[in-house]
Amino acid sequence: MLRIFVVLLLIAASPCLGRDAAARDTVKSGAFSMTLPLGLQGDSAYIPESNPMNEGKVELGKLLYFDTRLSKDNTVSCASCHSPYHGFADPGKVSAGVGSQLGGRNSPTVLNRLFSANQFWDGRAADLEEQAHGPLLNPVEMAMGSHADVVAVVKRIKGYGPHFAVAFGDDKVTMTRIAQAIATYERTVVTGNSAFDRYQAGDTSAMSGSAVRGMKLFHGKANCATCHASFNFTDENYRNIGVGMDKKKPDLGRYEVTKEDEDRGAFKTPTLRNIVQTAPYMHDGSEATLMAVVEFYDKGGIGNPQLSSDIKPLHLSAVDRRDLVEFLRALTGDVFNADPPGSFPQ
Amino acid sequence: MLRIFVVLLLIAASPCLGRDAAARDTVKSGAFSMTLPLGLQGDSAYIPESNPMNEGKVELGKLLYFDTRLSKDNTVSCASCHSPYHGFADPGKVSAGVGSQLGGRNSPTVLNRLFSANQFWDGRAADLEEQAHGPLLNPVEMAMGSHADVVAVVKRIKGYGPHFAVAFGDDKVTMTRIAQAIATYERTVVTGNSAFDRYQAGDTSAMSGSAVRGMKLFHGKANCATCHASFNFTDENYRNIGVGMDKKKPDLGRYEVTKEDEDRGAFKTPTLRNIVQTAPYMHDGSEATLMAVVEFYDKGGIGNPQLSSDIKPLHLSAVDRRDLVEFLRALTGDVFNADPPGSFPQ
Repeated sequence: MLRIFVVLLLIAASPCLGRDAAARDTVKSGAFSMTLPLGLQGDSAYIPESNPMNEGKVELGKLLYFDTRLSKDNTVSCASCHSPYHGFADPGKVSAGVGSQLGGRNSPTVLNRLFSANQFWDGRAADLEEQAHGPLLNPVEMAMGSHADVVAVVKRIKGYGPHFAVAFGDDKVTMTRIAQAIATYERTVVTGNSAFDRYQAGDTSAMSGSAVRGMKLFHGKANCATCHASFNFTDENYRNIGVGMDKKKPDLGRYEVTKEDEDRGAFKTPTLRNIVQTAPYMHDGSEATLMAVVEFYDKGGIGNPQLSSDIKPLHLSAVDRRDLVEFLRALTGDVFNADPPGSFPQ
Repeated sequence: MLRIFVVLLLIAASPCLGRDAAARDTVKSGAFSMTLPLGLQGDSAYIPESNPMNEGKVELGKLLYFDTRLSKDNTVSCASCHSPYHGFADPGKVSAGVGSQLGGRNSPTVLNRLFSANQFWDGRAADLEEQAHGPLLNPVEMAMGSHADVVAVVKRIKGYGPHFAVAFGDDKVTMTRIAQAIATYERTVVTGNSAFDRYQAGDTSAMSGSAVRGMKLFHGKANCATCHASFNFTDENYRNIGVGMDKKKPDLGRYEVTKEDEDRGAFKTPTLRNIVQTAPYMHDGSEATLMAVVEFYDKGGIGNPQLSSDIKPLHLSAVDRRDLVEFLRALTGDVFNADPPGSFPQ
């Protein structure tokens, strides 16, 4: 599987000529090695020491990620709310779990989570392994009664045994291993080699003049890069831009985790890579389009600096706003390892 | 509502300067007038004489389009499978209706259906009005028992009465009127003013060099424009490109409607506008990404000319394929009238 993955990466990179190929990074974890698409930085990868990567874990994790049998009524998988066909997010404002029950926040993307430790909008999970435990039990998501139930379901599917053996050395099924495998698969779901990356690597024909102007605004007048920083367009930090803070009972985000006043209404800065694929936007899905998001920032958010501490009006022109959107569109790259499995263990 | 709509269109067009604004078309239907985004051609609009447009119908149709109470278990609306957050299509290979039952084909987009008479992948509905009748009763979609049941549900919601009165002159609820209103709303869901349209209108900074090369391939060597023709990138005709034709029991598409041998495996050419938003692709959702679609065509489809009569290998280079994808991405435009209603009649 990894062989195919690497070959795909090489094919995808070939149009970018020698210079780009030379600039591509590799992520290593034990004997495992993964060549990253153009534009991603291997030294920013976060892989817990307790869960080194290997091909078997990637393959097992992919099967588990897409397997609806891990939900109470066999209708919901990780991919239901983090769909490969929707930038590994969900087109609903919030997601529907078993019995069409709705969650409370917009599904964040799985893309490039390789470059992040803390997970969820409020960062309450220390890593992807911890994150993977949550939705399986959440009564409005996959609604399994307990982790023991999850283990029992996977054990009952005999065909999973050999996959655990390849991944972990023996076929013992545990919740820790299930989460480790899913997290390992998720770390391979990376996106890069966007028009922006190819432009950065020297191909001036990769971005339009409008997108180039937008890039300058992004780093300058529009002040986006303060939070949407570095190669993955996120500082992995928490900010209060005021979304929903004018509601009667606002979602206080990071505050619910830290109980620190400065975290009221703060949510994790999302990556902007492939952002055109993951509408709607904001932690509550309240903005339908990228232009609406740019307009939200332009007018200084909800217009109440007390409730929206981290932004202020930008005074952009209509052309500026259009150029910014075109730059955001130029962050759309190739996603590898995204095709659902052809079949599942029985 | 129309006032807001037109104002939005004007604001959106303003960055495109005078020349673009001058090139924009208008669609008229009785006293109703709708200014189209840049790049769309008003004289190609199809509005049945029996269902002239008016503001009231647009507003009523939008409410009905997004109202899940029109499905058997109150969980599914038109927007569930034709989501404004996913280019008015569905990120599933096929869509899930009530009780998570799966349909047989990938949901086609509602975008720019204004420019089409026949609807569905196989064109079995003569217009949007006829189309709107289908999913309401389809047992794996909205699963209402009969059209009388649909009418009864809408009648029971007293708040709909005044909306019917504004739209149709009196508050009588009929299935014909429900379908007419939904179709009228759908005709306002248009996309244009893409980077491509702005480039065509003289703004050379709107498209990247890569996308411009892709555009030339699109009309030349790659031969896309034969079927994906004209301003809406579709000839509204039916073609057999072989997708799924190597299966044991292939979906025969248009043949099921006409019983003409030449229609075996033929499906309607979809528009390519906003195509980056509507993954996965093909009538069965079998291709996950635009690059996969380009590669499918490049290798001549399923490799069996007998089963795939309308295409042949293209022999594109890797750079060609990348440029084609960048051109397809440049067809992403603004969508108006896409925000779900803030509240529903009670």
